[in-house]
Amino acid sequence: MEKYIVNPYEIEEKSMEIIESIMDDADKFNSDELKVVKRIIHTTADFEYSKLIKFNNEPIEKCKQLLSSGCKIYADTEMIKVGVNRIKLKELGCEICNYVHDDDVRITAKEKGITRSMASIEKAVLNNDIKIFLIGNAPTALYKLIELFEGANKVPPLIIGVPIGFVGAAESKEELTKRENIPFITIRGRKGGSTVAVSIINAILKMI
Amino acid sequence: MEKYIVNPYEIEEKSMEIIESIMDDADKFNSDELKVVKRIIHTTADFEYSKLIKFNNEPIEKCKQLLSSGCKIYADTEMIKVGVNRIKLKELGCEICNYVHDDDVRITAKEKGITRSMASIEKAVLNNDIKIFLIGNAPTALYKLIELFEGANKVPPLIIGVPIGFVGAAESKEELTKRENIPFITIRGRKGGSTVAVSIINAILKMI
Repeated sequence: MEKYIVNPYEIEEKSMEIIESIMDDADKFNSDELKVVKRIIHTTADFEYSKLIKFNNEPIEKCKQLLSSGCKIYADTEMIKVGVNRIKLKELGCEICNYVHDDDVRITAKEKGITRSMASIEKAVLNNDIKIFLIGNAPTALYKLIELFEGANKVPPLIIGVPIGFVGAAESKEELTKRENIPFITIRGRKGGSTVAVSIINAILKMI
Repeated sequence: MEKYIVNPYEIEEKSMEIIESIMDDADKFNSDELKVVKRIIHTTADFEYSKLIKFNNEPIEKCKQLLSSGCKIYADTEMIKVGVNRIKLKELGCEICNYVHDDDVRITAKEKGITRSMASIEKAVLNNDIKIFLIGNAPTALYKLIELFEGANKVPPLIIGVPIGFVGAAESKEELTKRENIPFITIRGRKGGSTVAVSIINAILKMI
């Protein structure tokens, strides 16, 4: 078997060098945006993400401020929750939560005939400590989030809205991109997912 | 805002229909393989996966047998661990573990100057109850796994080896594909990841 690199720092540094050497549109991003884009490509090995990503209303700056103030983050899957850099979150006094497996959410979803993701969002928006919404899985969660804030005539502090899939994902993200007053990061089209959501927030945590 | 589908079963069914209508190579897979491939595409929105996947030595059949016998599964990330269908695992008496955050693993990795993923694999192969190795993140984990089994003159019962990345990922998976005696599922090239690993095992769990 060939010799392989076993030092994690060396592996990451080398990966980022390779990614930047392959990207053909690195210059369209500012330095912080580029860090986010490179981390997504590092996580997906998919260069299409640099064409699909959209930053609106200074989301990285706002994300840094919110994280530095020790806010709560809502993640729409357990996978996202455990993937986010827990040491860094603790340092900043931040907390990340997910309600999809909660009993009350299960019951509400069944009663209303909606997804558990939607019922979770209904619960999350009632918690005023939650400032960052990390949606990496369910289009219905993103739709519901936009709906509820609009219904209440409020603007969400920050949405990282990157649900994936074939039914509603692209459409829900198009709805988000129409809201120019919302600070958001999104991936247009079908692509996205839990690992993409994690890579975005971890890239920003690394900047602080 | 447009009306959107909120019934989770309807969303999944429709997604799978769309995926099969877009795939141009569905007929090269048998029925179980196709279920796995469709679930991966459902998770990534990336049709390249059907070109990159490789099944060797009846891995789905073996996976079903191992899961039905209530085995342990080693996952190389916490994200994989929480992503796998926990209700189904419990029903079958299966358990899934990950050692990356264990204190002894941290210490060994530091002392040896290797990745925590590698040190975790060293620990995992000592546990004879672990029959399925789900590697979705670290190429070094996959290399180490192949090395240790070969060093002990043994054949691993099943490897789902889909690490992602730019340094060693494609190469480690090429090493795996050279071992024709090992039952494995892999994704050639750079692509893969935790969500891909999860989608493969969840697709197989659904068949039981």
